[in-house]
Amino acid sequence: MTDVHEFRVFGKAMIDYVADYLETIRDRPVMPQVTPGYLKELIPEEAPDTPEHWKDIMKDVERVIMPGVTHWHSPQFHAYFPTANSYPAIVADILSDAIGCIGFSWIASPACTELEMVMMNWLGKMLNLPEQFLFRPGGKGGGVIQGTASEATLVAVLAARSKATRKHGTEATTKLVAYTSKLAHSSAERAGSLAGVMVRCLDVDEDQSLRGETLRRAIDEDKAKGLIPFVAVATLGTTSCCSYDNLLELGPICNEEDIWLHVDAAYAGSAFICPEYRPILNGVEFAQSFNFNPHKWMLVNFDCSTMWVQDADSIVSSFNVDPLYLQHKFQGQIPDYRHWHIPLGRRFRSLKIWFVLRLYGQEGIRSYIRTHIKLAHEFEAQIEQDERFEIFNPTTMGLVCFRLKGSNELNEALNKSINDEGRIHITPSKVGETFILRFAVCARTTEPKDIDFAYRVLVENALKIDR
Amino acid sequence: MTDVHEFRVFGKAMIDYVADYLETIRDRPVMPQVTPGYLKELIPEEAPDTPEHWKDIMKDVERVIMPGVTHWHSPQFHAYFPTANSYPAIVADILSDAIGCIGFSWIASPACTELEMVMMNWLGKMLNLPEQFLFRPGGKGGGVIQGTASEATLVAVLAARSKATRKHGTEATTKLVAYTSKLAHSSAERAGSLAGVMVRCLDVDEDQSLRGETLRRAIDEDKAKGLIPFVAVATLGTTSCCSYDNLLELGPICNEEDIWLHVDAAYAGSAFICPEYRPILNGVEFAQSFNFNPHKWMLVNFDCSTMWVQDADSIVSSFNVDPLYLQHKFQGQIPDYRHWHIPLGRRFRSLKIWFVLRLYGQEGIRSYIRTHIKLAHEFEAQIEQDERFEIFNPTTMGLVCFRLKGSNELNEALNKSINDEGRIHITPSKVGETFILRFAVCARTTEPKDIDFAYRVLVENALKIDR
Repeated sequence: MTDVHEFRVFGKAMIDYVADYLETIRDRPVMPQVTPGYLKELIPEEAPDTPEHWKDIMKDVERVIMPGVTHWHSPQFHAYFPTANSYPAIVADILSDAIGCIGFSWIASPACTELEMVMMNWLGKMLNLPEQFLFRPGGKGGGVIQGTASEATLVAVLAARSKATRKHGTEATTKLVAYTSKLAHSSAERAGSLAGVMVRCLDVDEDQSLRGETLRRAIDEDKAKGLIPFVAVATLGTTSCCSYDNLLELGPICNEEDIWLHVDAAYAGSAFICPEYRPILNGVEFAQSFNFNPHKWMLVNFDCSTMWVQDADSIVSSFNVDPLYLQHKFQGQIPDYRHWHIPLGRRFRSLKIWFVLRLYGQEGIRSYIRTHIKLAHEFEAQIEQDERFEIFNPTTMGLVCFRLKGSNELNEALNKSINDEGRIHITPSKVGETFILRFAVCARTTEPKDIDFAYRVLVENALKIDR
Repeated sequence: MTDVHEFRVFGKAMIDYVADYLETIRDRPVMPQVTPGYLKELIPEEAPDTPEHWKDIMKDVERVIMPGVTHWHSPQFHAYFPTANSYPAIVADILSDAIGCIGFSWIASPACTELEMVMMNWLGKMLNLPEQFLFRPGGKGGGVIQGTASEATLVAVLAARSKATRKHGTEATTKLVAYTSKLAHSSAERAGSLAGVMVRCLDVDEDQSLRGETLRRAIDEDKAKGLIPFVAVATLGTTSCCSYDNLLELGPICNEEDIWLHVDAAYAGSAFICPEYRPILNGVEFAQSFNFNPHKWMLVNFDCSTMWVQDADSIVSSFNVDPLYLQHKFQGQIPDYRHWHIPLGRRFRSLKIWFVLRLYGQEGIRSYIRTHIKLAHEFEAQIEQDERFEIFNPTTMGLVCFRLKGSNELNEALNKSINDEGRIHITPSKVGETFILRFAVCARTTEPKDIDFAYRVLVENALKIDR
């Protein structure tokens, strides 16, 4: 399979295989029924010495791989958050793989840098981001594709740390404090720990929102102790329950205190392209950086986490190491994206955005988002009319958070029962002391009948568990 | 193009397009002739409202993208280091995209974790790595796919920092010193700077190798100053000139001083699967972590940077943040790879390794490596017999470092002349005060005639420049 004729045959066979896989995914159990170590029994302990035939590999995909796959694109998958998957993105990745450029600098493949710049502007305009975040003549802002929201947060924290140590000296590092909410994604706390700074996870209000006065109090306490507040990570659409921190309150405080504000809208961000949800993003103008994941809810396959900054220099100056073997004669005229993130190498990921936006159109994407939210509301309505259950917080996007009325233990048992049985897959969370069940609309192909099915599974398991 | 029938047609058209692209790549100029900003003139400023046809996108690939592509897989591309590209890896990525799982934990897709574990053992055995680096019953070691060598180095430095602060207290962070050589990749210095620690780039000997006595002297000096040496990054196959640090000298010193030794063999590592090059890796048994990039020279498309550690707990304990929404009932029985790296999400990258190793076989890969080294020696021989040129250091892998006899300015002019003309693409480096030209054998399809062509281009440009 190292020659081009076999590639044409094998590649097309794979196209048909994945088309069949995705179209019939509904027939596969969403959760695998394997236990740890299953796979190593199925394949040799060493690589073969001589080439095998591609047809043998195709057979092994069903024999070895599929039994151990959690089918994230099954309409019965309601765990975590969605991860995007679309045909245009799959085709774009074939091209990206074939071009196979490593776009660390402009010269290393101008199209890779430049399409990314234009796509970041396309997306930024769809979100109606303040124009200081966009690439524009004479402007300082711009966007970049990161691998994950974790990396975007880490980049923001490191850039903020760099700014703070320029101001206060390197020895101040041990006094730096980062703020986020108790409901922020674990990656916010992890970013602080990787950056070697203190992180305070602040309390949220009764709507699970981090408020200005909470931040203000923490800042005052910490400054009184001689500490240096330097970054705040606010979330729009928390992983636990899709709650929203109050940007309009947090923003002015951060600006006043010279604290870098990073806004993580990994999941919910995609919805801000619909005018009816855009108000949630108000206050982003106070932020130094903003991030959301098209690879979650905008049909662009993982990985594609888009991040914008108001002042690109603030990031570039934190990461800039510039050896001769990476320099080129157009330097300074256009971004060299290697200074914008953690890795050096990068794939041609903007092709996925380009293909998806052109083949769906903005209207197609908006309609996709609205359909998911509608389905979530249908599920919420079924829960609401059932007196055994209670809604934890109002559904705003494609995530419904609910629980059986009663103890946490009861809800843990229900969660376990549903997932052990495996007709649908959900994941729980804990907000404060309350154990909740999370139901996310994930698959591109989810239909009303899947919502009804999930509700039925839920009720059957609720009846089954020992109360 | 959002329905499956169009996907079958579009996907197969793309397979044919990339097959044609890669087979006729020789006919395209290796370097694009565009200037910064070319692309934004060719496409709209906003995403379309309604869907376009996939055929229009295919047309735009040639109209918009290709003029701005630096063709990394052209046999006339001799810059940087190779980046891998093979048909089996491209096909594997189609499957990876379709499965589209996010393998952050075992339960999130068991096959994704388990195939990676087996592939890391396959590769580890091919390299004849000491068995403490492999997954084995009762063992502590194992391997993980990172995105890039930059990330592997950063993970090693952060794990070492975490170990050091557990021993010396967090307040010791400002006293921590990392060591690497002046010829280490820029990512080593960058990792230290991201981790917020001091980095010393030590001198190399006349063979461009970091030696034990140099490290010993630096450690003694720093300890005398009250500093705490905690990590050393050694390179096998430097980017500048493919030189090798002396592991057999550095290793025992690091072990004696409780310094984490990380070995970065990003490029050269692939060659260690050939018994005749394996001795270069001797001393890896002293290292806590080792990394090389199959995405450079082992036909596995970017990104795939493989890293092994002797004690996985040393990494996991540095990164472990464990929220309820990511927990599962098999935890602790098998790796949850999210604790092994910077991002949370991860693609199903081991499929690429599996496809490539099975479709080439170990013998096929070894033969591929040997062919590239042979071609490099052919180029070296042409340089050696030409009295205008001198070899900078002996060629051991697929990289030839050489220069015109004479000043740096002369060589800078030659480099500029060759790249401005664009028949071949090379990148220079500077070792100490010496400006050198680097000629890397990169493309899978490079043949002896391409070597002859490159030499001819070199000579013609040497004649052309003003001496």
